[in-house]
Amino acid sequence: MFQNDIAAAALLTDEPRSNTPRLSAAEAALARHSVRAYRDVPVTDDEVRTLLELTGRAPSAFNLQPWRFIVVRDQAVKDRLRTAAYNQKQVGEAPVVVAMYADMEDTMVHLDEVVHPDLTPDKKAGTVAMLQNTFGGMTPEARATWANAQANIALGYLLLIAKSEGFDTSPMLGFQADEVKRILDIPAHATITSLVALGRGADDGFRSHRHTVDRVATFV
Amino acid sequence: MFQNDIAAAALLTDEPRSNTPRLSAAEAALARHSVRAYRDVPVTDDEVRTLLELTGRAPSAFNLQPWRFIVVRDQAVKDRLRTAAYNQKQVGEAPVVVAMYADMEDTMVHLDEVVHPDLTPDKKAGTVAMLQNTFGGMTPEARATWANAQANIALGYLLLIAKSEGFDTSPMLGFQADEVKRILDIPAHATITSLVALGRGADDGFRSHRHTVDRVATFV
Repeated sequence: MFQNDIAAAALLTDEPRSNTPRLSAAEAALARHSVRAYRDVPVTDDEVRTLLELTGRAPSAFNLQPWRFIVVRDQAVKDRLRTAAYNQKQVGEAPVVVAMYADMEDTMVHLDEVVHPDLTPDKKAGTVAMLQNTFGGMTPEARATWANAQANIALGYLLLIAKSEGFDTSPMLGFQADEVKRILDIPAHATITSLVALGRGADDGFRSHRHTVDRVATFV
Repeated sequence: MFQNDIAAAALLTDEPRSNTPRLSAAEAALARHSVRAYRDVPVTDDEVRTLLELTGRAPSAFNLQPWRFIVVRDQAVKDRLRTAAYNQKQVGEAPVVVAMYADMEDTMVHLDEVVHPDLTPDKKAGTVAMLQNTFGGMTPEARATWANAQANIALGYLLLIAKSEGFDTSPMLGFQADEVKRILDIPAHATITSLVALGRGADDGFRSHRHTVDRVATFV
């Protein structure tokens, strides 16, 4: 077991939170709706850390893991974010708001961190060179777009895992990105993947409809 | 319960597949690795349909659901895809390969399908006009990029749900996109989000490392 799994594995053997039995991923997918009203029940830093550790298990191309998170609990900061998010109430009222972003420039200057630790020094250097070659020829904007798509895989993980563990969420794309970057000191080159309100819902959220499988899938 | 939940809910009450107990989303996140070797055990169309129905529960901005799927089981087609995917063996050997793509142009000409069915005709028309205004001014390329990021949320869902339900997966971005589009008759304007090999693994896959929470998260 790798070092950074230990905390998550330990927490998984704790008593279920809030007496909510954990849901399978499928059950969580069916039960989860975006929730805009939250109960005044704290979410602890340990709970958020566990959710983010599990979220970070998401796969990414070349294992680059370009996602980054700012976990906001401070009410004054949440209030400023709410203003930047067109006054959506869940930004001010959820106990936690996670600003998730993709930072491919940070990734590029730390490629040594993402190559597998078990590789020989020669293989590590070769992998870093390959990655520099693959992404170095792209513009920072194109790299940022690519990284943001990868970060959305982790967003899918976060939303399902949170629901499975008894939390509700509301992911948002409606905000003034430059203003959110300024408030949270997120680099200008980064792309904000989502603002995610996180807590225990006061209701089940708004039930929205979905395409049927036949509308979106073809079998060959 | 909405109509398109019924099949999924019914299958969720079936006996667990392959005697594998269903995993919570958190357990699936820890257990899941990309698997490149698959056992010769069929995956039924019903199983794939259930996985895709659950995957389609993923949220997307404005509920646009721009993701589309081509489910490939035909060996001759898989062999052609394998060639287009630089001969990665799992493309030819997994029982199912799902080509997941984002088609924002199809979404744009069917906006009436994504607005909520309970809205009044006036509100529906207003929502469609807002969406046309929001995305109509973007280039098709910019819209495609946006839709592909959204489709990756659903990819995160698919990978976790598949593992929770006893399946293994390998998502891939290494392929000649134009060739895959030609083989599968995917529109040129679409973005291929991922090729996903799906089946029951012959091994647990390659264990890759991840950043620690402290490396990627800041608490405010």
